[in-house]
Amino acid sequence: LSSPGSATGLRVADAGERALIERIRSRVPPPNSSLVVGIGDDAAVAAPERGALQVLTTDALVEGVHFDRRFSTPADIGHKALAVNVSDVASMGGASRLALLSLMLPPDTALSDVDELIDGLLGLAKRLRIGLAGGNITRSPGPLVVDVTVIGSVRPRRILTRGGGRAGDDLYVTGRIGAALAGLEWLREQCRTQSGAPPHPADELMAECVERYRRPEPRSRLGAMLGRTRAASACMDLSDGLADAITQMSSASRTGAKLDASLRPIHPSADAWFSQ
Amino acid sequence: LSSPGSATGLRVADAGERALIERIRSRVPPPNSSLVVGIGDDAAVAAPERGALQVLTTDALVEGVHFDRRFSTPADIGHKALAVNVSDVASMGGASRLALLSLMLPPDTALSDVDELIDGLLGLAKRLRIGLAGGNITRSPGPLVVDVTVIGSVRPRRILTRGGGRAGDDLYVTGRIGAALAGLEWLREQCRTQSGAPPHPADELMAECVERYRRPEPRSRLGAMLGRTRAASACMDLSDGLADAITQMSSASRTGAKLDASLRPIHPSADAWFSQ
Repeated sequence: LSSPGSATGLRVADAGERALIERIRSRVPPPNSSLVVGIGDDAAVAAPERGALQVLTTDALVEGVHFDRRFSTPADIGHKALAVNVSDVASMGGASRLALLSLMLPPDTALSDVDELIDGLLGLAKRLRIGLAGGNITRSPGPLVVDVTVIGSVRPRRILTRGGGRAGDDLYVTGRIGAALAGLEWLREQCRTQSGAPPHPADELMAECVERYRRPEPRSRLGAMLGRTRAASACMDLSDGLADAITQMSSASRTGAKLDASLRPIHPSADAWFSQ
Repeated sequence: LSSPGSATGLRVADAGERALIERIRSRVPPPNSSLVVGIGDDAAVAAPERGALQVLTTDALVEGVHFDRRFSTPADIGHKALAVNVSDVASMGGASRLALLSLMLPPDTALSDVDELIDGLLGLAKRLRIGLAGGNITRSPGPLVVDVTVIGSVRPRRILTRGGGRAGDDLYVTGRIGAALAGLEWLREQCRTQSGAPPHPADELMAECVERYRRPEPRSRLGAMLGRTRAASACMDLSDGLADAITQMSSASRTGAKLDASLRPIHPSADAWFSQ
């Protein structure tokens, strides 16, 4: 864990924009053949998937709003910035293919932190076969900002929207909810009661919650599968919680929703945390 | 011209994210048929142009780095945030088709300023037939940030890169340079010598420089034409000045460059400004 000003070594202020781009480019694996022009020109050029539609989404992580450098490593932040976008593409029934990274860096950011952030993003990208096609780097006079755009593809009849729900449909979530929030609350409590960066939780269940907060795993295969099989009539990313998602989906689908609170699939560790 | 805290009326802090998205969506004209899913779902879905490659670029305007709210109206900022991206697509020989808008708003931003920013962006978008497909809004604990991604298209044989130059090629710029910088310097000088927002320049030539700084006009038709006709072997957006562009293009094209300084096409008003 590092915070601004704490790390030793070179900082963003010591490097120019070109040097930073070169530094990032050197970490990016060679692109696949669908990327005609990659990092380093005025724009990237890519071949779209034949017969597919483009899925386009952008989501930013802002320091002090979406993350705290005491709670997340630079690699966690890079991972999460890509993950939240992949999750949006998956919830449309699509597959993520390319990413653009727009970085806004405070001048005192350690270059080693930038490297780690990139590696965190590239680790997830490699696993999901997403190519980093390009992006932008600029100085930030305020927070660290990691703004990612993901371009995916979806077959025309496989698109899932929020508005496809009909009266009588059942409502599912793809996992067990509450773990990330429990993890965040645990980290906050550790920071109140201890000095320095929070330790790794000794408790295995709480460790899982903290991991879910730091490194959410986008349901990319499941999203594409739900689009392909039409097993779902509507779909939505749960980024702002279950209650919000139900309100949004009901509104878009012009229907109501009835929830049996006892059936909410709460993560057991989260359940234990919130019941204590 | 408005600055944080100076305007009356509702502010970003008074509205929720959903209300802001709804506010923006209400200003966006109905999309054309290639946009299958627009603003308001987890991601946008669009039909790619048949037989074309995708051009992808992202560029952010950060308050205090790329703009000053004393010098530019919210509408100027919205216009410029789109223009710099369109310029990148044009320099690849491509045509801009869709945009994503990622906004980071300080809580004290007036909602009327957000409206004007959107209208400034949409004004240019309408003129260039670019659809606003989606985006993201978040709070900023620091500067106002307008991060735009543009998705364009280009035919495979029409791509212009920085690296296509060969020894013996002539070097051209598409207009006369220096006007935007002269305009910015004029605005700065006005701010030093007067209180409040700078007035509109009485001098017609200086007014043109200020306009070039506030509302750069991307050379979108010319870029697409250079790609189509192959009149250029290489091309680059001049965002960081002529000297930088020549260095970048020479390096990418593995060649040198010889410049007759007297032949630089300096804008006459800029020439007068810098000679004074």
